[in-house]
Amino acid sequence: MADRTRRAPTGAAVLQPQVTTAIADAVLTELADAGYGRLSMEAVAKRAGVGKSALYRRWPSKREMVVSVVSELSVPMARVPDTGSLRGDLRAVLAGVHEWITHPLLSRILPDLTAEATRTPALAGVIADMIGEPRRARGAEVLTRAVARGELPADVDVELAMDLVAAPLYWRVRVRQAELEDDYLDKLVDLLVRALTR
Amino acid sequence: MADRTRRAPTGAAVLQPQVTTAIADAVLTELADAGYGRLSMEAVAKRAGVGKSALYRRWPSKREMVVSVVSELSVPMARVPDTGSLRGDLRAVLAGVHEWITHPLLSRILPDLTAEATRTPALAGVIADMIGEPRRARGAEVLTRAVARGELPADVDVELAMDLVAAPLYWRVRVRQAELEDDYLDKLVDLLVRALTR
Repeated sequence: MADRTRRAPTGAAVLQPQVTTAIADAVLTELADAGYGRLSMEAVAKRAGVGKSALYRRWPSKREMVVSVVSELSVPMARVPDTGSLRGDLRAVLAGVHEWITHPLLSRILPDLTAEATRTPALAGVIADMIGEPRRARGAEVLTRAVARGELPADVDVELAMDLVAAPLYWRVRVRQAELEDDYLDKLVDLLVRALTR
Repeated sequence: MADRTRRAPTGAAVLQPQVTTAIADAVLTELADAGYGRLSMEAVAKRAGVGKSALYRRWPSKREMVVSVVSELSVPMARVPDTGSLRGDLRAVLAGVHEWITHPLLSRILPDLTAEATRTPALAGVIADMIGEPRRARGAEVLTRAVARGELPADVDVELAMDLVAAPLYWRVRVRQAELEDDYLDKLVDLLVRALTR
């Protein structure tokens, strides 16, 4: 019997959060193991212990399912620190980027999605809309506050600055797959502050 | 009959350059179309109009064949300019990186190889040895000359500097697949010179 003090489920139209979570976990694991190209709705449903209809009630297609699930995990990982200084904020943003690209599943998912998006422009657009832009909007708050404090000139090129924040880490860790020295983030933040301030 | 004024072919041990070129072209086209995972020696041989033995006479395996062919194309594209100034040299290096990552075939091949290397650490090692490190060695000459001219401090972090040169372009163009403004390279070189010089 439903507890009358809580909202009672109203049947199939209600999306149970714990099912959504189980599906999201299954999507991430399948993506990391099989890659986007070989990921099937059947395999996700089976891994999550649900029917395929549970997937299609939530997302119209594999593309929306995948990008939505990766977005739900990725966007909150873009930190919006407020340490009071550009240096402190950028250092925290860099730590967040590092955490994102070294996440046990995302570390395999992100390069695969990038390659797939190269082959499928429509996928690239959805990824930019649902992952790239929301993450950049969060990161840009740090630059906006630095402008307000007078630490950055008002005409700072936010797009270029955002590229410089995420790119070196992605290049070093994910593309080159090279070691990251213990002081890499500190040295990178030194260079970034020097490059952006005048 | 062989022309006695030229060195006569000595049979199967001679690797004919025009055959090697035909195979390399076939490898690049197959890589761009099918990706590393689906690329087969059969398809490469068929496209090049040779037997599979012609491939195995040149490379011990698909891995060595692919990385060797991509290396032969990629390493010479890493420019070693000598314009007389750090700014001029970096600007030319950036133009070379842009040419590399927007090459009609490499633009599709590089993200695919990155994703594949994430799944296969041994492939990542061969890519670093045959493509990444030789390209970086060429780029580092620019920094070494800037140190000799007194434009850069002797203790400049060459590894970090090299990351900053290639990373923003790869991130913007290949990962984000975003537009590159006409003045992007100029603005980027301004930031790099400011970041690296003291």
